[in-house]
Amino acid sequence: MKGGAAPADPGPVAIICGGGTFPFTVADALIRQGRRVVLFPLSGFADEQAASRYPHYRAHVGQMGRFLRIARREGCRDVVFIGTLVRPAIRELRLDWTTLRLMPRIARIYYGGDDRLISGVGRIFEDFGFRMLGAHEVAPEILVPEGPLGSHSPSPADEADIAQGLAVLRATGDFDIGQAVVVSKNHVLALEAAEGTDGMLERVAALRAAGRIRAPAGQGVLVKAPKPNQDRRFDLPSIGPKTIEGVRRAGLAGIAVVAGETIIAEPQAIVEAADRAGLFVVGIRNSQAVGS
Amino acid sequence: MKGGAAPADPGPVAIICGGGTFPFTVADALIRQGRRVVLFPLSGFADEQAASRYPHYRAHVGQMGRFLRIARREGCRDVVFIGTLVRPAIRELRLDWTTLRLMPRIARIYYGGDDRLISGVGRIFEDFGFRMLGAHEVAPEILVPEGPLGSHSPSPADEADIAQGLAVLRATGDFDIGQAVVVSKNHVLALEAAEGTDGMLERVAALRAAGRIRAPAGQGVLVKAPKPNQDRRFDLPSIGPKTIEGVRRAGLAGIAVVAGETIIAEPQAIVEAADRAGLFVVGIRNSQAVGS
Repeated sequence: MKGGAAPADPGPVAIICGGGTFPFTVADALIRQGRRVVLFPLSGFADEQAASRYPHYRAHVGQMGRFLRIARREGCRDVVFIGTLVRPAIRELRLDWTTLRLMPRIARIYYGGDDRLISGVGRIFEDFGFRMLGAHEVAPEILVPEGPLGSHSPSPADEADIAQGLAVLRATGDFDIGQAVVVSKNHVLALEAAEGTDGMLERVAALRAAGRIRAPAGQGVLVKAPKPNQDRRFDLPSIGPKTIEGVRRAGLAGIAVVAGETIIAEPQAIVEAADRAGLFVVGIRNSQAVGS
Repeated sequence: MKGGAAPADPGPVAIICGGGTFPFTVADALIRQGRRVVLFPLSGFADEQAASRYPHYRAHVGQMGRFLRIARREGCRDVVFIGTLVRPAIRELRLDWTTLRLMPRIARIYYGGDDRLISGVGRIFEDFGFRMLGAHEVAPEILVPEGPLGSHSPSPADEADIAQGLAVLRATGDFDIGQAVVVSKNHVLALEAAEGTDGMLERVAALRAAGRIRAPAGQGVLVKAPKPNQDRRFDLPSIGPKTIEGVRRAGLAGIAVVAGETIIAEPQAIVEAADRAGLFVVGIRNSQAVGS
């Protein structure tokens, strides 16, 4: 094929895997597209059993040198970083030599907000010649589509709560806080920060159990949206079956997320669980959303 | 004294008492100023034993008619409404006739945010000829003064967290959310909504215990500020010994509140507890603050 027009083999995609099922959803999507993948399940975060179904190399968060060496040897140029990663304490990391040399830079990133952590790490990979891709770029089928996902739709009152939630997220977007808020009858019940979406939903359930929420069960919406300046390659909001369960326990009416900018895990399980619980799950248009 | 210049007796101040010690702090301050007081401890919320030391009439939240009748008979013109009041379920209220007639109006207020609830109720009292006074107007000595309250002061890093916290509260102020935020090393750890300040601090303590907060203990600040459009007659942020205990458990460095716009319960107990725990409590200038 010398001198021909065939594209060079782009090589396998290196998938650095945090927790949850998203890394494998992305891996499967890439394989369906005919790309090869090499997984780097992060010890203590990733599901190593699930990772063992793919070509993979275990890695610790602090082993940048090991990753670079193996990823180059495997011919990877594209890197996807996906999955949950509860921020580890620096003392718990096993730092290799390359990582140690990068420490002054990592430390500066580390003590910034989540956005800075994630896009800062991304820039380090790029300095080493890799191309960071967003999971949504390599596997757009993992994104929430526009419109209701199951058989329920938001009521006009829910629509008002959704608009209020988006306005709140727009206002807090500059501060690298959370990506989620719970609004019921125009009243903000909870705003996510370090506790994460699941923690926030548990809190709403506890407040309701304690009689501290006025509106009756079956009202209120969980609204999630990317931050205005979020680097969508590294960190998109996501929902999974656990989100549905949290919303059900919190006694809300449903979930609104930004279509095309929210990763959905196990869509079939989500739709079934939402339908069973009488909840709506709706992908709203970008133009209504934060950061567009 | 007919025709003389002596001011008319303004009558006693009616103090509608919610929970906590603030109602009695305000009552004592008024008595020291030579004003008479009549307390209306709200059943289920107010400390009735403490109220029994003053002229008082028990009342239920829903007994507007009873309040109006007694307050007029006692010659009250000024009303102060103070103390915590977890929003009761409407079905738990014992509504009297006057209240029932006001219900359409109360219901509209009730399903708004906290601001609307509180200032809406204030307007109803004013329509009946009373003058609503803020606790800070009748007893300015219950407000946090400017500067550090105990023997500790914020570090430059704490000052940066305070500035960040105020910026976050300014951004969320339009939404009738919380009045408090926890910031540590420029990272927003928690933002208050329906759970209240104590609930938010418990959450930060739990996140720290679970290893989900990066910054070591002894860093981070609780920042409280009035909302930009808050009616300061009805609802000022407050701190008490419980706040100190919550901040200590959350592993923070201290508390920043707006001087002159924050009510302090049991200042001596606060200063002693803060000094013992190595925490700062600082009243910051209005010009640095939200809503000024």
